Amino acid sequence: MRHDHLITSKQLSRSDVETVLDRAAEIDADPVAVADRHAGTLLGLLFFEPSTRTKMSFETAMKRLGGDVVDMGAVESSSVTKGETLADTVRVIEGYADALVLRHPKQGSATMASEFVDVPLLNAGDGAGHHPTQTLLDLYTIRKNAGLDDLTIGIMGDLKYGRTVHSLAYALTNFDARQHFISPESLQLPREVVYDLHQAGNGSGVREHESLEDVLPSLDVLYVTRIQRERFPDESEYQKVAGEYQIDLETLERASDDLTVMHPLPRVDEIAPEIDDTEYAAYFEQAHNGVPVRMALLDLFLSANGGGADE
Amino acid sequence: MRHDHLITSKQLSRSDVETVLDRAAEIDADPVAVADRHAGTLLGLLFFEPSTRTKMSFETAMKRLGGDVVDMGAVESSSVTKGETLADTVRVIEGYADALVLRHPKQGSATMASEFVDVPLLNAGDGAGHHPTQTLLDLYTIRKNAGLDDLTIGIMGDLKYGRTVHSLAYALTNFDARQHFISPESLQLPREVVYDLHQAGNGSGVREHESLEDVLPSLDVLYVTRIQRERFPDESEYQKVAGEYQIDLETLERASDDLTVMHPLPRVDEIAPEIDDTEYAAYFEQAHNGVPVRMALLDLFLSANGGGADE
Amino acid sequence: MRHDHLITSKQLSRSDVETVLDRAAEIDADPVAVADRHAGTLLGLLFFEPSTRTKMSFETAMKRLGGDVVDMGAVESSSVTKGETLADTVRVIEGYADALVLRHPKQGSATMASEFVDVPLLNAGDGAGHHPTQTLLDLYTIRKNAGLDDLTIGIMGDLKYGRTVHSLAYALTNFDARQHFISPESLQLPREVVYDLHQAGNGSGVREHESLEDVLPSLDVLYVTRIQRERFPDESEYQKVAGEYQIDLETLERASDDLTVMHPLPRVDEIAPEIDDTEYAAYFEQAHNGVPVRMALLDLFLSANGGGADE
Repeated sequence: MRHDHLITSKQLSRSDVETVLDRAAEIDADPVAVADRHAGTLLGLLFFEPSTRTKMSFETAMKRLGGDVVDMGAVESSSVTKGETLADTVRVIEGYADALVLRHPKQGSATMASEFVDVPLLNAGDGAGHHPTQTLLDLYTIRKNAGLDDLTIGIMGDLKYGRTVHSLAYALTNFDARQHFISPESLQLPREVVYDLHQAGNGSGVREHESLEDVLPSLDVLYVTRIQRERFPDESEYQKVAGEYQIDLETLERASDDLTVMHPLPRVDEIAPEIDDTEYAAYFEQAHNGVPVRMALLDLFLSANGGGADE
Repeated sequence: MRHDHLITSKQLSRSDVETVLDRAAEIDADPVAVADRHAGTLLGLLFFEPSTRTKMSFETAMKRLGGDVVDMGAVESSSVTKGETLADTVRVIEGYADALVLRHPKQGSATMASEFVDVPLLNAGDGAGHHPTQTLLDLYTIRKNAGLDDLTIGIMGDLKYGRTVHSLAYALTNFDARQHFISPESLQLPREVVYDLHQAGNGSGVREHESLEDVLPSLDVLYVTRIQRERFPDESEYQKVAGEYQIDLETLERASDDLTVMHPLPRVDEIAPEIDDTEYAAYFEQAHNGVPVRMALLDLFLSANGGGADE
Repeated sequence: MRHDHLITSKQLSRSDVETVLDRAAEIDADPVAVADRHAGTLLGLLFFEPSTRTKMSFETAMKRLGGDVVDMGAVESSSVTKGETLADTVRVIEGYADALVLRHPKQGSATMASEFVDVPLLNAGDGAGHHPTQTLLDLYTIRKNAGLDDLTIGIMGDLKYGRTVHSLAYALTNFDARQHFISPESLQLPREVVYDLHQAGNGSGVREHESLEDVLPSLDVLYVTRIQRERFPDESEYQKVAGEYQIDLETLERASDDLTVMHPLPRVDEIAPEIDDTEYAAYFEQAHNGVPVRMALLDLFLSANGGGADE
């Protein structure tokens, strides 16, 4: 894998994705083998937006590789409030760290920031832009539970605003996957995303539905996302729509026994807690997979840049 | 000691308490011996309420054992604000860490959370509920300064709202301790706590007083707590009451030369600074004792769960 | 170097400064040699005011020496909000750490706090008081780029309120430096600072100017600081004044080719981005120099106090 920075999952070829997932699987199988691999390495965390799981799992990943982090902390207590540009902030912090992780509310900020630094920069979400490490952990979870080839996946919920969903959908066009998109009409995939998927997909199917019912029995994976209350003009409208895209054990009666249910979390009411302890549920495992996948990414980027000894 | 989690000091037998205090004493005597004992271990910090000393001393304890922490950070910048349940939050973070420390404003939350995780969970305070690690460091400080047997202790200040006081009082019923409770009538121990102490105490004395004067000469330990301004309808009423439960060198003229003065900190006016440099003062030592006691607890819980090599 | 604490750059003799800078240069040349030198050491961070680069570079410095930090966190989530005094806070946290770094908004607080603790305390800025580690990294940057002897330096911008500037100016009186101060009349150096510089300077020149123009060709170093909008009664007045103290490539046409441009950062408009990639620019290097200089300081203070093994 030859990249200076990780900005979008679109930059990753099928072979790049497989390199990351294979490395993650190796690490998952024997984490002790890499426990000191990047001792002395410091990862700079620049989170210009709140985040729990992405930040914690990057921090965990770096520490599980023997390294440590330096954290810019909350924006309110940083120099940003004094009017410093992002370009200046990253150039300063690059002097403290061997690699940087950036989350920023503005789309395109990761690309811009990466042009100012010499250390690897990993995009942890830039507004409505990209979130490639989430996509990679999603792919890792799918591969582990259902395989990435000859896959039938349903992606359900808010498909209009979710960058997670768009990134995943694009990435899946690299594989032999049939994608079903299930949402209320008002939260359908943007037309340009559908167009791009058809362009990229060389024939892999992309179909849209308003109801889960017809498509459920054929699914290997059901990827559920949160429908946000604030997208709807009034509460009753939200309740009506959201209710149709929630799943419980009764919903799943018509599903395959091998169905894998995923969710990027946090969830609110989309998945009934009664599913948590069943074989369907893979969403906590999915969150946990953030660690080996980010360990793999850090290892690949730090090693390519001379930050890790050869094994 | 055979426990999966540490939720309340009530779950600890006299023998459990002694196991913890003995281990803390060993560590205190030779901290270098355990400096790498839990290398590679990550402790997850979930503080849903502000805290300085409890959080810092847990963090210090884990690092003094060679491990590290991953911190959820402030609630305002976490997924909790998106409506995630505590059960979901702990199940996600359990994937990052080898043990969890939880502080939460709601009583009972530690018990609930512990039912969802497989790693050891240590309660660092759940509202008006329990705060067992504070109790253990209090007991450790008492044992070191005055001994836990044939002990006469006075506990003074706000006895109505202080969970620290209730936990300590319960724990002391395991030992041969005479307990004197000194407070204004409006801030007396709740009746159910007095009842429980009598039930648990098999004869060990529990007595209540409105004034320190009579009981002071007999005390080995005086445990002072803060009386909070906001408990009183007006400032003058507060000043009058609080003034009677503050101590200075003049107050202590009638005390034993061996008296040990404790306070869970932070203090405001309860203990005059002139006492700080005397032999009476044990409150800074008490705060510092949080480190070896929490090291002992982490060591015991992590070792029982396979997290530490045998020595 | 024989000091218990680092409170002000005024306490440092020329020989002390050279000891620190020499050690920083050694570390800079071979950071791997000290990568484990203070393994097991914990540095307590007490930042009562927001800070990005000072805090991150102290944290980086401690970690690059093999140690770790324990951070009090934001004031809002600390015991300080319960009315605890600074003297109590530092005495508690001293029990967790082998050395302390303090930033506090009140002038004199570092001196006061240092009287209550036995571990080394390093002042990271106390209000309008001192910020000695900034001064040392400035001196290190000057020495590396232009040398500290036979130096002609211009210090420009807000000279009235900047503690950075006052500290640096005092420290330069130890060396053979000609200092030119360039500012609008309303933001001139305070008269007592000028007086002190003349007293301390044993003949080294101190001159004040309203314009950069005349003095620019003679400068080895130009140290630019930010002029703050809020110092001016109205926006147009600010724009007019600030505009005269901003530099771009055109401004520098009359400068020496060897001119070094410094800035404590964050900058807003004082230095045009077009200068960033020229040989003049040393301000990002200056920020990065915070790491080896603070490593040197930590190493010297921790070793003097028995915290580090001899090499």
